[in-house]
Amino acid sequence: MPTRLVSFEAGGAARAGVLLGEEEVLDLAAAGLPYGDMQSVVEGGAEALAAIRSALKNPAAGARRKLSDAKLLAPLPRPRRNVFCVGRNYMDHVAEGDRTRGVQNSELPKFPQFFTKAPECVIGPDEAIPDHGASGVTKWLDYEAELTLVIGRPGRDIQPGDALSHVFGWTLANDVTGRDLQRRYGQWFKGKSLDRSCPMGPWIVPADELDASDLAIRLTVNGEQRQSSRTSKMIFDVGQILHHLSLGFTLLPGDVVMTGTPEGVGYAMQPPQVLKAGDVVEIEVEGIGRLRNPVA
Amino acid sequence: MPTRLVSFEAGGAARAGVLLGEEEVLDLAAAGLPYGDMQSVVEGGAEALAAIRSALKNPAAGARRKLSDAKLLAPLPRPRRNVFCVGRNYMDHVAEGDRTRGVQNSELPKFPQFFTKAPECVIGPDEAIPDHGASGVTKWLDYEAELTLVIGRPGRDIQPGDALSHVFGWTLANDVTGRDLQRRYGQWFKGKSLDRSCPMGPWIVPADELDASDLAIRLTVNGEQRQSSRTSKMIFDVGQILHHLSLGFTLLPGDVVMTGTPEGVGYAMQPPQVLKAGDVVEIEVEGIGRLRNPVA
Repeated sequence: MPTRLVSFEAGGAARAGVLLGEEEVLDLAAAGLPYGDMQSVVEGGAEALAAIRSALKNPAAGARRKLSDAKLLAPLPRPRRNVFCVGRNYMDHVAEGDRTRGVQNSELPKFPQFFTKAPECVIGPDEAIPDHGASGVTKWLDYEAELTLVIGRPGRDIQPGDALSHVFGWTLANDVTGRDLQRRYGQWFKGKSLDRSCPMGPWIVPADELDASDLAIRLTVNGEQRQSSRTSKMIFDVGQILHHLSLGFTLLPGDVVMTGTPEGVGYAMQPPQVLKAGDVVEIEVEGIGRLRNPVA
Repeated sequence: MPTRLVSFEAGGAARAGVLLGEEEVLDLAAAGLPYGDMQSVVEGGAEALAAIRSALKNPAAGARRKLSDAKLLAPLPRPRRNVFCVGRNYMDHVAEGDRTRGVQNSELPKFPQFFTKAPECVIGPDEAIPDHGASGVTKWLDYEAELTLVIGRPGRDIQPGDALSHVFGWTLANDVTGRDLQRRYGQWFKGKSLDRSCPMGPWIVPADELDASDLAIRLTVNGEQRQSSRTSKMIFDVGQILHHLSLGFTLLPGDVVMTGTPEGVGYAMQPPQVLKAGDVVEIEVEGIGRLRNPVA
């Protein structure tokens, strides 16, 4: 079982912790560690991880909390700035998108396409994704399972081969999208940044414990499998993503980068499927965990 | 002379102030007002403005600082999240862009195109825009003069006619762009978010003192006029911009929205012009002020 770093709510504030088995969390600050929130853990880097692993070996009784009394939040409940995303990063997803637009003979993107989601869009495990149905803002709400990384070490003009040394850890996120808005507004920010459209979690697995280059990634809606691929099928791998993203642009500790989604999104299904109130979306990435969110 | 709200540096920290004539700034916190930084002024809204105007009438001697001893910063030195931008929002700019790509018969965009710049890209008056020449990241650095607004009152699904009540004030910004990157990466974030690519300032003029619907907007490079238009020529006015941007998405106090640039950008000139080290870019919007930045 990997180290699972969580943010959780206690007394109305977000705190940093690490899971103890399946029923308890160790409150890092209560255990005497200088990490009141996840951002400080990320900034602490290898030193923080060493201290946390040490604390896990003999967890202070007074710092153990029952998970039944704690609400898990997104591991970074409010990232320091917009979440960075990559579009069209799995060939079969490019092809299904082209097919829905009547494009023949899909070509591989030559460069990654970056867009952002506002940090306040982030919600945690089991929190509800609004269907935006009442307001009529979108009629075409869709999901996108994505392997997601958190930057640990700042960097600019990062070389692909050095990129992993800038990654603090891995988590999952759902790039919930208003497909009609994504198309209508040309640039994708609008369709990608609806309120509460970025479920993230349930925890961060430190990068030094997991090779994320070839992991199974899956998404189900109401238990029905919609997406199933492997992270090795990315067009631009994590090294390439961080290289391009950081050209002339400094990445900072706590930055969140979503790495794109594989094929199987709702709008490309025959017939197309939209998320609706009552649906339950679950994402799983091998070696990390499972993120579940209802649509309300 | 309108009220000119500034952020300035003293003792290594950003402080909020208001200009007194041309040579002094009133330090708001030193004058006993509960506004240590511009974000708190913006959140204070009408109440903050009333207190500041009252303080201006009889400025406390101990709170007056010489501008020669204070460094003006961007009015929001580090916005709370990515700066929101609108592309292709002046018809003549749409036409010049189409012309450079060989597109005949430009059409008006039917919906505004939103993208973002990272908050750390913001720099203040007289701060240097890097030419990124040494790293070779971009060979095509360009300018874009833009009327820019700061959100005061939060809102979602804002109606166009109600939008101005959400605007705290007006400032200027330069949407510095790597044109080659903007085109290469498809989505515009990459070309728009180079380090230090968002000069902003020099101050905020409160929205209740200025009707920004028909102001002259100009940009010069080394004193040579490049852009000259009026804000009334926007395709989507401020009401439409905030309406579309806020559909299903909550705008927050301190959000910064750039409203697009008129014709005259460097890449559309004959022959095309790029910004290079040693250039000085100045933006002016009637009734607000002038923002000057060298390229280094």
